[in-house]
Formats: sequence, structure tokens, C-alpha cells
Amino acid sequence: MVNAGDMNGSGNLMDFLDEPFPDVGTYGDFHTIDWLREKSRDTDRHRKITSKSKESIWEFIKSLLDAWSGWVVMLLIGLLAGTLAGVIDLAVDWMTDLKEGVCLSAFWYSHEQCCWTSNETTFDDRDKCPLWQKWSELLVNQSEGASAYILNYFLYIMWALSFAFLAVSLVRVFAPYACGSGIPEIKTILSGFIIRGYLGKWTLLIKTVTLVLVVSSGLSLGKEGPLVHVACCCGNFFSSLFSKYSKNEGKRREVLSAAAAAGVSVAFGAPIGGVLFSLEEVSYYFPLKTLWRSFFAALVAAFTLRSINPFGNSRLVLFYVEYHTPWRRKTTRLGKYPVLEVIVVTAITAIIAYPNPYTRRSTSELISELFNDCGALESSQLCDYINDPNMTRPVDDIPDRPAGIGVYTAMWQLALALIFKIIITIFTFGMKIPSGLFIPSMAVGAMAGRMVGIGVEQLAYHHHDWIIFRNWCRPGADCVTPGLYAMVGAAACLGGVTRMTVSLVVIMFELTGGLEYIVPLMAAAVTSKWVADAFGKEGIYEAHIHLNGYPFLDAKDEFTHRTLATDVMRPRRGEPPLSVLTQDSMTVEDVETLIKETDYNGFPVVVSKDSERLIGFAQRRELILAIKNARQRQDGVVSNSIMYFTEDPPELPANSPHPLKLRRILNLSPFTVTDHTPMETVVDIFRKLGLRQCLVTRSGRLLGIITKKDVLRHMAQMANQDPESIMFN
Amino acid sequence: MVNAGDMNGSGNLMDFLDEPFPDVGTYGDFHTIDWLREKSRDTDRHRKITSKSKESIWEFIKSLLDAWSGWVVMLLIGLLAGTLAGVIDLAVDWMTDLKEGVCLSAFWYSHEQCCWTSNETTFDDRDKCPLWQKWSELLVNQSEGASAYILNYFLYIMWALSFAFLAVSLVRVFAPYACGSGIPEIKTILSGFIIRGYLGKWTLLIKTVTLVLVVSSGLSLGKEGPLVHVACCCGNFFSSLFSKYSKNEGKRREVLSAAAAAGVSVAFGAPIGGVLFSLEEVSYYFPLKTLWRSFFAALVAAFTLRSINPFGNSRLVLFYVEYHTPWRRKTTRLGKYPVLEVIVVTAITAIIAYPNPYTRRSTSELISELFNDCGALESSQLCDYINDPNMTRPVDDIPDRPAGIGVYTAMWQLALALIFKIIITIFTFGMKIPSGLFIPSMAVGAMAGRMVGIGVEQLAYHHHDWIIFRNWCRPGADCVTPGLYAMVGAAACLGGVTRMTVSLVVIMFELTGGLEYIVPLMAAAVTSKWVADAFGKEGIYEAHIHLNGYPFLDAKDEFTHRTLATDVMRPRRGEPPLSVLTQDSMTVEDVETLIKETDYNGFPVVVSKDSERLIGFAQRRELILAIKNARQRQDGVVSNSIMYFTEDPPELPANSPHPLKLRRILNLSPFTVTDHTPMETVVDIFRKLGLRQCLVTRSGRLLGIITKKDVLRHMAQMANQDPESIMFN
Repeated sequence: MVNAGDMNGSGNLMDFLDEPFPDVGTYGDFHTIDWLREKSRDTDRHRKITSKSKESIWEFIKSLLDAWSGWVVMLLIGLLAGTLAGVIDLAVDWMTDLKEGVCLSAFWYSHEQCCWTSNETTFDDRDKCPLWQKWSELLVNQSEGASAYILNYFLYIMWALSFAFLAVSLVRVFAPYACGSGIPEIKTILSGFIIRGYLGKWTLLIKTVTLVLVVSSGLSLGKEGPLVHVACCCGNFFSSLFSKYSKNEGKRREVLSAAAAAGVSVAFGAPIGGVLFSLEEVSYYFPLKTLWRSFFAALVAAFTLRSINPFGNSRLVLFYVEYHTPWRRKTTRLGKYPVLEVIVVTAITAIIAYPNPYTRRSTSELISELFNDCGALESSQLCDYINDPNMTRPVDDIPDRPAGIGVYTAMWQLALALIFKIIITIFTFGMKIPSGLFIPSMAVGAMAGRMVGIGVEQLAYHHHDWIIFRNWCRPGADCVTPGLYAMVGAAACLGGVTRMTVSLVVIMFELTGGLEYIVPLMAAAVTSKWVADAFGKEGIYEAHIHLNGYPFLDAKDEFTHRTLATDVMRPRRGEPPLSVLTQDSMTVEDVETLIKETDYNGFPVVVSKDSERLIGFAQRRELILAIKNARQRQDGVVSNSIMYFTEDPPELPANSPHPLKLRRILNLSPFTVTDHTPMETVVDIFRKLGLRQCLVTRSGRLLGIITKKDVLRHMAQMANQDPESIMFN
Repeated sequence: MVNAGDMNGSGNLMDFLDEPFPDVGTYGDFHTIDWLREKSRDTDRHRKITSKSKESIWEFIKSLLDAWSGWVVMLLIGLLAGTLAGVIDLAVDWMTDLKEGVCLSAFWYSHEQCCWTSNETTFDDRDKCPLWQKWSELLVNQSEGASAYILNYFLYIMWALSFAFLAVSLVRVFAPYACGSGIPEIKTILSGFIIRGYLGKWTLLIKTVTLVLVVSSGLSLGKEGPLVHVACCCGNFFSSLFSKYSKNEGKRREVLSAAAAAGVSVAFGAPIGGVLFSLEEVSYYFPLKTLWRSFFAALVAAFTLRSINPFGNSRLVLFYVEYHTPWRRKTTRLGKYPVLEVIVVTAITAIIAYPNPYTRRSTSELISELFNDCGALESSQLCDYINDPNMTRPVDDIPDRPAGIGVYTAMWQLALALIFKIIITIFTFGMKIPSGLFIPSMAVGAMAGRMVGIGVEQLAYHHHDWIIFRNWCRPGADCVTPGLYAMVGAAACLGGVTRMTVSLVVIMFELTGGLEYIVPLMAAAVTSKWVADAFGKEGIYEAHIHLNGYPFLDAKDEFTHRTLATDVMRPRRGEPPLSVLTQDSMTVEDVETLIKETDYNGFPVVVSKDSERLIGFAQRRELILAIKNARQRQDGVVSNSIMYFTEDPPELPANSPHPLKLRRILNLSPFTVTDHTPMETVVDIFRKLGLRQCLVTRSGRLLGIITKKDVLRHMAQMANQDPESIMFN
């Protein structure tokens, strides 16, 4: 199984507060929760509050507060996630610009803010104002020329390196869990796995700070995944304030699902997309109640972000990030030296990115430019078309035109930027810093799409008599829109990486407002999913989960093999028989020996070793605790006391030791299946009911046990035996 | 329980083809399917195909075809649903206009098409062209004046009455299931209930034709719900062409879920909204695979509709319908005379609707006008503001202006139309004709919203020094947008009726393209859900399901009572013991008697009457069939033959009758829970695994049985005992 060391290297994990005495009802680190049990615990709590609420007005008010606490938590998550995203946006703005220069009126102003407050800014050239000085202007008083360029270039690299160094050091020292995008781990946690500290306060703090640093350093990574992680940390923090959520791992996960929605909502300014992303991609148990709550959290978060953002009405303003990779790589030799790795990759990124205008700027600006269509007055290099001087059309309706020299230059630069990004993101991925996935994939797709779009446009202009163009490309008509190609390319690339479909289209059109393009976007999403599935069924998150060996029972995998429960259950043939307790014949000492010799999570309780008729299941933790308590507090319980799981222990002779009654810790409704049950059904039951284990019986006799791990192991074995069966699913 | 008579009155149900000899593996009408069983049957089929596919290239191709048949079905559904929706739109267009006049160049042209093809149409007055003649012009050669008005009015009513009469007669005679919106029944069917003929070919045909008739007649109903029903009929039809779907009720329901998405997609031109509607509102079992398929079907359907629609690019063109009701009413005295009821309601609707411009036109046009904002050049009565002659702003940026006389007239007419619609829809709902729900609710909300919006706008204009307006309403600024109020009102009203949240917002913004308004729309959806939930948790569909008594286990209801399986299982205390079979001691005659005396769906099989250890479950139908077959074909099986459910029947003495071996019909993995299992868990298991029945054991001994009906009955009892507990969920 997984352990913390495997996953994150050693480190000073501040959040790893190991509980010295395990409580009844808690789970160990790297264990799986039992959803049914959590659910019934919540119902008990709920019933207690409901019956108490009839006693007094104060209790009634408390019960109302409890009923509304879910909405309160959502509100708080939305507010905090929106605020953090806003602060990150502002800080990234400022620090990205700091690499190039500084504002003289107030050093904490970004380039745009600096010139915004300056009166000398003209509308035509908003980017230039005397208050904003490039480093070369400030230090050597030169704004042009080779030496100024070299000085700026050098300082750009230095700033990038120091940001990256600071980030990787912070992650390494304070919060190793803050690295990566976090989405695969959150997916695993939401499926019921426990990773202590992964959503802790230190992770929240360090991930927020280092996210600003790495995005500002210009590395090839994005902030979307990390923002989801940050929002989930907020969710975890606020859950811990309400006992309804802090004491119930199942309820806590409902809050986390909603927090993930809020995270995507602020990452893209796409509240509905966020809810769908949480539903389609991240969550495991997503009842309709969570749908509504997620919706509310996403709404509050988007609203908060919008109120904070000072520039703010365009959706793409929410969209300030850098690159990231669609490819994966488990480790390199450099991977053993995470700080050095980050420094080297940052240096290479900065050195190569600076000269090319398409890699120097932030990726969101790049994507925005690639998506946009060229108007007649557009100043972008990509829009350097040769205009017909006789054209008398209105501004919005421009026919296809031949490309000018600027477009050809842009094509070369885009091609180089595309190659650079694909390569550098392969190396950036998996470094020990926060790194997201969406924007870099979209940038790669958008660059490729725009280039194809311009190519088709020029083909159509020069050959409008070709059959494929003839029907809708008359000379002087506008028949090809390169911006749309870029948008579709971005959607297709992101879809191929993540295998999202519905949430992808919704995010794309919340991002771009391109409601008219819904049909090409949907077609791109479906096609890219088909093509990508032909190479392998796993999206990047599932692949990551498998690489890390997390015990994740994916709802998307179908199990279609002919095996039965009897083939999977333990004990196997030849193994020693199952360790069971009997209801009225074992002594305390027998049980203590059994506990010492085995490490099972619990033991089935049977009528007697002969009849093997199952009556219940006792958890290991609760047994240990009950025996400990009894030995300490209950008079007369000694090593040869008999343990009774029956309702009424028989009257014992006077001289026999005091019995230990344990019926109250016995789970009287353990889940059972017969040995003939198809594994397909068993997998379905584990998946849908979130079981930890299941007992196997035949004609009422206990035969064995199947745990979630057994199921996962069996599924992996079957998939290896018969890989081609996957294609028929 | 429900029966066909209760639900739809008697009728000539062409689709009720009762199977004279029940097949193994089929279910009876008004029975519930067993999802687990259907799933494992599909896996068997799948395995058979996979193993065969290795035998020859032909079998391999067949297996590929089988794997792709799901996508093929989706494609066909999308194409047919889109085509039908397009044809319905065109036919409704034509017939709605037919009530007012006719096109001289071709009588099958609608008003718009007629003037479209005419050369004499000017851009300013597209509605008037000499080829289109009102009835008064054609018949008495008068276009103005009282007598022309009366003649037009009379013919309008006559046409409406004949359409409505034809519709109700067709429904009554050919397809009683074609009435209503169909969504509650589809929800029930998708949850696993069987209603034969509900999605049959006759229903498809009649519902399509009568939908055109009733919408054209101007009744207060919409076409959205019925279009979902029509799409599901298409889905059912295409499923029947592929054995993968026709022979498996579970797989068939996956197709129907996707078909429902396609239906909403064409009803609103909102493919994503359709997928979400199917997920949130209609479907029961919605795996991610179905999400992708639904997405594809919705895409194809929207695309097909767009290609057919000759006017085609505006989204609101997809939106040609009439009214419907947010309120419910079980029956009236008129309800016993369905045809008379339809005629009376149609007559009243037509008589009152004609004079008021806001009720005469189609509701989609009305909604479109209410949503739109007033430009400077707008000719609508709602936009009759007093313009400032000195205004020099651009056309798009109009400050608040005082209302003119037209606006006040419009307010009065809107108020009357609002009252009329609320009342008439109460009577329209539940008539025996196809009728939808969305557009009328939206119209009511939009009218109220627009009126509030205009009120606030005028308040702000005249009192811009009030505290609430002071911050953002300077004189000469545009601070209140009445169109937005209408849009929010429509969303809120529809949300209150159906309790949709996410799908509502997505549909609204796919409909209107109002991406900027996502925050107010989300706020409206959440608020209206909260307010409506305070009056009762049920949306209109759930209420309808309860009124009709369908066995629907709603995923939204939470069960939080403290009862145990033992409280619900049968036999209850004092009832005769459970009818069981023994594995090796009952004769054929014993079993036949048992079958004759009881009407259970199946019988548990135990080791012996003494030990009562459960070994399996035998279906009634399969028992009957097996005995019948054995008696006919198997030599020596007579009434006193012993039935063996064991693996190896013992050697019998030579003179004893030939035994009947029945192990192959025995389900060796029946679902069991212990008698101590909380009902909460049992409800969860029934819901998530889609069980039909579940056996109750204690220490391996069979105690009783719980069926889906028992669970539903128990939930209803508990809800009645303690209604206030609902508010805490």
C-alpha cells in the first residue's frame, strides 16, 4: 500500500498530528472509510437533535442552526475561496510585472494599475506611462538597445529563479502535500480514503503563497488545479468548525465536493462549469443535495471574486496563469534533487521564453488573443492582413483577406512556442511545486488550432473554387474564423487530457461566452474523447491515481469478468481459516492473542466454530478499546473472563470470572453476499454503497471476507489478464 | 397498486399486446425490474460476444458492431427527435397562423413564410404582404372594422375548437397514454417500473400529431414535456431494433435517459441543459457513460433541428409554443367528460385570449419580447418611453427614461394577461391532451418580473435620491433593466414549479444567451427553491407521481427513522409463515399448489423447513415455465416427482418418479440483510442497487422478505407519522 514517504518524500509534516489514542469511530491514516457506517452515524446524531428539539426552545433553535449549518459552511467556503483567488490574482499580476520593471509611484502596483492611476496614460498606448519603469530604465537609464535588453533579460531570469527557489523551499520545508495539482489526491480522498494533513491549514497557507510564486515565475504550469486544492483546504477548515462535519468523514466529503466546485468556479469564473466538474470529474458520492450546495458555494465564490477583482468585468480577467503539461513522467534523475530540478527548469523556461512574444506573456493573455477574431482596427501581429483599400463594409463584417508579413512571422513564432511548450511542460510536470493542468493544455490546443485556422483561411482565400470551399466561400465573404479554430483546439486538447465532456463544454462557454459555438465545441469534446480513449481509457487524473497506487474504485471502469465472490474472498484455498470470534465461548485472553497475531480491521462473530452461522462483525479498534476499558474500570474482568456477544449472557456459577458483555460494539447488520454472487455485483455493491468489507456466506454459513483492497487487487489482475476486453466497454 | 384503468381511463390501447406466454426474463405490466439482475444478464451477453469474437473475423466485426450500437442508437434518436421537433415547429407555425388567415400563393405557408417569399415585403413592415390574407379579407373582402374583427374572432375560435376536438378525440381513441406531459411517468419508468405501451409507436405517432393540434389551438400549455415524451418514444423504438437494448430493461433505460436529454435539447435548443435536466430531474440510474451518450444524442438532435428549421439561427426560433400550468388539480366534475372539458376550456381560452395582444400571440414570442431590453428605435408598446430630444448617446446606451402612455397600457394588459393565465392554466392542466409545463410557468414569471422591473425603473427614475438607488442611479444613467427582471422572474417561477436548480440556470442561459446574468439567475434559482421548499418538498413531477401512486423511490427523500428491517419485513407478527420452497423435499404438486394459492413474484429456497438456512431464490415465472416444460417434454416427471435445487440429487430407488432438477433457475446470490439492519440502510440499498426484493435473515436463518412495495409503504407511513421531521433534511 501507499505510505507518506512513497508519495511525497520525507519532510517536516506539520499537519501530521498522530492521535496517540485512537477514538472509537475514527479511521487511521491511509485507511478507507465505511460510507454506510458514517451515514448511519449521521442519522443517529440527527435523530438525537430532532428528539431533543422538542424539549425546549433553545434546543429547537440549536436544531435549526444545525439544519442550516450546511449552508453556512457553503457561504464561508465561497467567501474564503473567492477572496483567496482574488488575492492570488492581484499578487500574481504584481509579481509577474515585477520581473520586467517597477512602478515608481507605489512599488506594490502592477504595470496596469500603475498606468491606470497615472494621468499621462493615453488611450492608444495604455501600456506606456512614465511612472512604470523597466529595470534597465531605473538602473542604467536606458530603455532601448542591446545592453538594456540584456539587463532586462538577466533580471527577468533572476526574478524567476528566486520566485521558484522560494516556492520549492517553502513546499519542501513546510508542506510537502502542497505540491502538484492535488486533484488526483482530492479525488481519492473524496472516494473515502484518509490522507491526514492533505487538506490541512499548513497546506492551505503554503499552497496559496507558493502558487503565487510559481505562477509569477513564468513556469509552464497553471493555477486551476491548485485552486481546487486550496478551496478544498478551505472546505476542510470550515468543516472542522462544525461538529456535524468534523466528526463524520462522510458528511465532510459532501462539503469537500462542494468546495471543489467553488475552486473551479473561481479558477475560471465559471460557476456552473465548476459544479459540473465536481460532479463529472472529482466527486464520488454526489447526492442531489450536494449539487444544490455546490451550486450555492460556486455562486458565492464567483461573486466574491468578482467583487474583489478591481479591473473586473471581463471573464478572462479571472484567467491569469501560465502553462502546464498534458504529458506525464514518473521520475527523472533530477527528480531526486527537487530544488535543483525546479531551478534548472525555471532557468531554461525563463531563458527560452523571454525572446518569443508568445511565450513571454502570460498564457491567459495568449489564449485570449488566439481566441479573438481580427477586426479591421486590430493591432495584433496575428491580424496583420492586407486590407482591400476599396472596402466599404462595416467594421464587424470583414471578408477573408490575404495574410500580411506579420501573420507569417506570428505563425513561425507560434510554431516555436508550441514545440517549446509541449517539451517544457513534460519536464515541469511533477516538480515539487503547486502546478495546474488546464491552461497549459488549452494554450497548446489554442496555438495548434489557430495555426490550422489561419492555414485553412488562406487556403480558402486563394482557392475558393475548391469543392470543399465552393459552397460557402464566395470571394469577398468571411468564411473561415481562425479564432474559432483556436477555441475548438483548446477544448479538444483539454478534453483529451482530462476526458471531461459536459463540464468541459460548459467551462469553455462560460469562459468565452461563445454560446453560438456550442455545437463545434461539443463535437470537439466528443471526438477528442473518442480518439484519446482509443489510446487508453484513463484521463490524467486516473493515470496519476494509478501511478501513485491509491485505492480508488473508479465508477467509470466496468467490471465484466465471470469471477464469483468465492474466487476473491479470503481465506484462499490452502490458507489458514478465517479468524473469527464466537458469540459465547472465547475468553478475553483468546481475543487479545487473536488481536496481537493479526492485523485485520475487524472480526466476524459466529454462533460457534462448528455451526459458523454469522451473527455480526466487531471492529478491531472498538474491541481493543472495550477490552482496555473493561480491564481498567470493570471489576472482575480478567484474562479468562468469557466474552459474550449474545443478548442475554447465561447465569454463570458464582466462582467463575465476571463476564464481559460486548453486544453493544457488535455490528448486527454486517454486509453479506453468497459465495455464488458474481464479482460484477460485488464490485457494484462496493462502489455504490461505499463498503469497506463484505462477508461471504453459503446457506447461512460464514465462508470468508472480501475487503475493498481485495476487490481492487482482483480488478487489477483481471485487467492485466485480458487487456483487450476494455475496448468493448 | 396502480392499474391502467386508474391512470388513464379505459381505452382502446393498441399497444397493449399482452404476451400470452411469459418469457423467462421478462416482467409483467406495472411491475418493477430488478436492476442487478438486468445488469448481470447484460454482462453475460457481453461475455458471450467477447469470447465468440475470437473465433472468426465475422464474429469480431459483429462484436465491434455491438460495442458501437449504443452510439448508433444515440445517433438515430438524435436524428429522429430533431426531425420530429422541426416538423412540429413548422406545423405549429402554419396552423397557428391558419387561425387568423391563409397564404394565397400556397396554403401550406405560414404567415412569415408567405411574406418571406413575397417580393412586395418591405423591411419595415414584414408582417404585411398582399399574399397573406386574413379570413375577413378573403371571405368578405374587409380588413378593418367591427364586422371584420368579429368574423376573424369567430373563425379564430372555430379553428381553435376544431383543433382541440380533433386532438382530444385522437388521444381518446388511439393512445390514452399520449395525454399530459409524460415526465412523471417517464421518471417512474426510468426508476424501473414497467408501463407497457407508454412509450409505444402509437403513443409516438398520436402524441406528435396531437401536440401540433393543441399547441396550435392556443390552449394554455407548452410543448416541452411532451417533446421529452416523444423523444423517449423514439428511444424506445430504436432500442427495440437492437437486441442489446430490447431484451434488457436496464440497458433500455440507459437509452431512455439519453433520449430525455435529446427531448429537452430540441424543446429549448439547449443541449447542455437537456443533459442536466435528464440528470437532475428525470433519471434514476445515470452512470457517466450515459452522460456522454446523452451529450451526443442532445448534440445530434439540436444539430438536426437547426438544419431543418428554415428560419434558423436565433435560439428563440426553437421556441414556438403556448402556455401551461404551475398548479395542480386532481379532477373536476368536467373531468369525467374529457372531450367536453377540452372544448369548454379551449373556447374560454380562445374567447378571452384574442382581444389581449399579450395572450393572443404565442407565448414564446411574448417571453422573447418581455426579456428584451428597449433600444431607442424599439417599436414595441412596452418600449414607449418619452425620449429626451437632446440625447446624443449611442444607440446601445440609453439612460432611464420616464414611461410613456404605451407602457402604462402595456402594464394593464400584462396584469390582466397574468391573472388570466394563472387561472386558465389551473383548468388546462390535467386535461386528456398532451401538455407541457415549462413555457407557461416561464411566461407567468416573466410577466410578473417585467411588471416589477418597470415599476422599479420608474421609481428609480423619479426618486433617484432614495437611499437604495443613490449609489448607482445618477440621473441620465441606465440603472434598471426591466428585461432582466423578466428573465429572473421566469427562472424563479420555473424553479419554484419544478425545483430544478443547475439545469434551470443552464437552460435559461442557453435560451437567452444571457451569460452575464448568471449570478442573478443562480440567486433566483436558489431563492425560489428555498421559498418553495418551505411550502413542501415536492416539485410538480414528484407531486404528480405521488398523486398517481407510482412506486417511485425518490433519491431526494431521505429516510431518517429508527426502524429496523425486522419492523418492515413480512410475514408480520400473527401472519402465516413465509411461503418457502425446500431444496430437496417438495413434490411438483406441492409447488404447483403453492403457486396457485399465492401471488408472490418468487419464493426463497431453504435447506429444510427446520433449519431454514437460505440457499437461493426462485422466480415465480421461471418456476411455472420450468414445470410446464418438464411436464410436456421430460419423461417421467409427474405430480409426485421431487424437485431438487441441490447440485447433485441423490440416487433414487428405481421405482420412484423421475426427479425434477431446478438448480439452473435458482438465483444463488439473493440479496440478504440481517433483521437488525436499520431501514435507513435498507432504503439506501434498494435505491442504489435497484432491488426488487431483499431477504431478511438472522444468524443465517431466513426470517422474512422485504419488497420495494413494502419499503415504499413503510416510508409513506413514517412520513405521515412525523411530518415535521422533513424540514430537517
